Amino acid sequence: MLNFNFYNPTRIFFGKDRLEVIDKNVPANARVLITFGGGSAKKSGLIEKVKTFLGKRKIYEFGGIEPNPRYETLVKTIEIVRSENIDFILAVGGGSVIDGTKFISLASFYKGDSRDLLKYGFRPIPFDVVRKVVPFGTVLTLPATGSEMNSGAVISYEHGKFPVMCELIFPEFSILDPTITFTLPRIQVANGVIDAFVHTVEQYITFPADAKVQDRIAEGILQTLIEIGATTVAEPENYDARANLVWSATMALNGIIGAGVPQDWATHMIGHELTALFGIDHGQTLAIVYPALLEVRRTQKRAKLLQYAERVWHIGKGGEDEKIDLAIKKTREFFESLGIKTRLSEYGVTADKIPVVIEQLKAHGMTALSETQDLTLDISQKILERAM
Amino acid sequence: MLNFNFYNPTRIFFGKDRLEVIDKNVPANARVLITFGGGSAKKSGLIEKVKTFLGKRKIYEFGGIEPNPRYETLVKTIEIVRSENIDFILAVGGGSVIDGTKFISLASFYKGDSRDLLKYGFRPIPFDVVRKVVPFGTVLTLPATGSEMNSGAVISYEHGKFPVMCELIFPEFSILDPTITFTLPRIQVANGVIDAFVHTVEQYITFPADAKVQDRIAEGILQTLIEIGATTVAEPENYDARANLVWSATMALNGIIGAGVPQDWATHMIGHELTALFGIDHGQTLAIVYPALLEVRRTQKRAKLLQYAERVWHIGKGGEDEKIDLAIKKTREFFESLGIKTRLSEYGVTADKIPVVIEQLKAHGMTALSETQDLTLDISQKILERAM
Repeated sequence: MLNFNFYNPTRIFFGKDRLEVIDKNVPANARVLITFGGGSAKKSGLIEKVKTFLGKRKIYEFGGIEPNPRYETLVKTIEIVRSENIDFILAVGGGSVIDGTKFISLASFYKGDSRDLLKYGFRPIPFDVVRKVVPFGTVLTLPATGSEMNSGAVISYEHGKFPVMCELIFPEFSILDPTITFTLPRIQVANGVIDAFVHTVEQYITFPADAKVQDRIAEGILQTLIEIGATTVAEPENYDARANLVWSATMALNGIIGAGVPQDWATHMIGHELTALFGIDHGQTLAIVYPALLEVRRTQKRAKLLQYAERVWHIGKGGEDEKIDLAIKKTREFFESLGIKTRLSEYGVTADKIPVVIEQLKAHGMTALSETQDLTLDISQKILERAM
Repeated sequence: MLNFNFYNPTRIFFGKDRLEVIDKNVPANARVLITFGGGSAKKSGLIEKVKTFLGKRKIYEFGGIEPNPRYETLVKTIEIVRSENIDFILAVGGGSVIDGTKFISLASFYKGDSRDLLKYGFRPIPFDVVRKVVPFGTVLTLPATGSEMNSGAVISYEHGKFPVMCELIFPEFSILDPTITFTLPRIQVANGVIDAFVHTVEQYITFPADAKVQDRIAEGILQTLIEIGATTVAEPENYDARANLVWSATMALNGIIGAGVPQDWATHMIGHELTALFGIDHGQTLAIVYPALLEVRRTQKRAKLLQYAERVWHIGKGGEDEKIDLAIKKTREFFESLGIKTRLSEYGVTADKIPVVIEQLKAHGMTALSETQDLTLDISQKILERAM
């Protein structure tokens, strides 16, 4: 097992009818900003419900945080937070609203140009750059990114997606009520299953580090997603299936399975460019890139791919290469069983666009990806060709 | 899945050579009390090493916290904390030292008779009873209880063992360096494996709640303990095996596997009486009670016992009852493979002592144990008879 640090102070309130905890967990007399997205939280009546639990606190609203939240949108909110002396933010939404809220929380006390905060990548923002943030909680509406229980965000600016990592932006609390997610469009649920699945394999299918419990947990999340994926897409009001999706997605990126193991975020990095360039949903980009990446990187990932084949897909028969082939095939079929296409060409992207993607990866410094930092632009190109 | 709350703010520093984090994580200029146990941490030089990382901070020491820490011992330390204005406590030890330190932390700011704090059992101590504690960190020397990453303690007083639960007594940080545990006596390591194992099954072998990820994690911890148990007892300096034991023991009782599932702490409750009456090690009492409890409670636990047989022990053949029989047999054999006896008679306790145990359970209100609160004294008696 590799040495590791683990820290995660977010309070989770999971289950049916949990909104009542808002009153106890938002400071009394706080001036509260509610952030949300495109309006479905408003239309469904969720925002109004949340407001009743805030009682007599002074409430402000900021809607319109878009999928892949944009710096240009968020920066407007920072003005509101400052001018209205907001003490607490309540994010009502999925990963994009929560990520956007994290950035607002972080940037509100930052004195310089808040675009500075986008430059640290996966390095945590140093303690002396930001010492104080606006505390916030979340009401999760979309199980997918895990943002509700971690300290990372991804912010879009111009043609890039920028990770922002800072220990100060763990949510104070997150309310995870699976019933709130019942009204989601099926495609968003399917994307969410894939996001959680790929988060998990990115921390698992690398090289062996003898982190036995972490491996078993990763395998447990994957098996759960395989078990409930198609059901929760087809039967949105099946509480048990949805509850298992919600908790799987949170557990996939709250630090537990990533503790003490190598990690390979190449799929996310390549996927981010596909979203930025072609507007393909985040989950879909992962479904496109990941099977192709496994095919190209099967030698580097051989030992863990075999473990994945045997423990997750229960493939007992055949030679090692056969087992790996079948595991990759089953991974692709699983994504497709959720109604998500796994070929770049199926999204209208032609092979002549690959150099543009490579150019963007280069521009963003994504030239040495993977758990061994040897996934060069040449290899990214092979992955994209394979993904056509 | 049952509704649940999850919260765990303890920072973990895991791996080789982590003591250097002490300097950054103990407040500068703090007046620090180091708590420890019977002296092995002193003899091994660990206390001196810890002191070097505390630099110029004013240091006090309190040794002699015994296994199953006693109120009578701990209360002396509370005087020191108050008279010397201690700002931070550093517990260097196993579960007993950490549990004792939690009590010291909690009681130091309590104005009344601190025995009051023993009366809440598994109910969290109400917020208005204690509002402030002395913050503390831990350097773990014995993987077993999970106390290094939770907010519970068990304190002995007169002839009872009293659980103390309070959100304020999560350690600020815990340093988990597997190499520090290399010098432990084998029996303590074996007891630790059993403690972690039984913590896990107490949150897993109950009745099904469709908490798929939690079940898989529990199964993952059990499989890991089975895989490395005998090795880490026989080869104390095998880093990989020991690292997996240390993290398994922490994960077994940090709230993750217990989130959203029924729990059955009957084995611990009955075991506590055996320790208090006959001085049997905590881990040994669990090895005595648990297989007997499974035999007596096989009907109530049938569905989960089958799942346990199939997923943890990979018992694929045979009828349901055969599978359950074999799983219980393998559980007992696993404990015995670690060098721990599983029969009460093997510890010199004769059947005529059972009524005394039952009397104590009654005196401590342990009359409706288990996940369904229907484990009465009659059933405890059957379990103890079965455990002879």
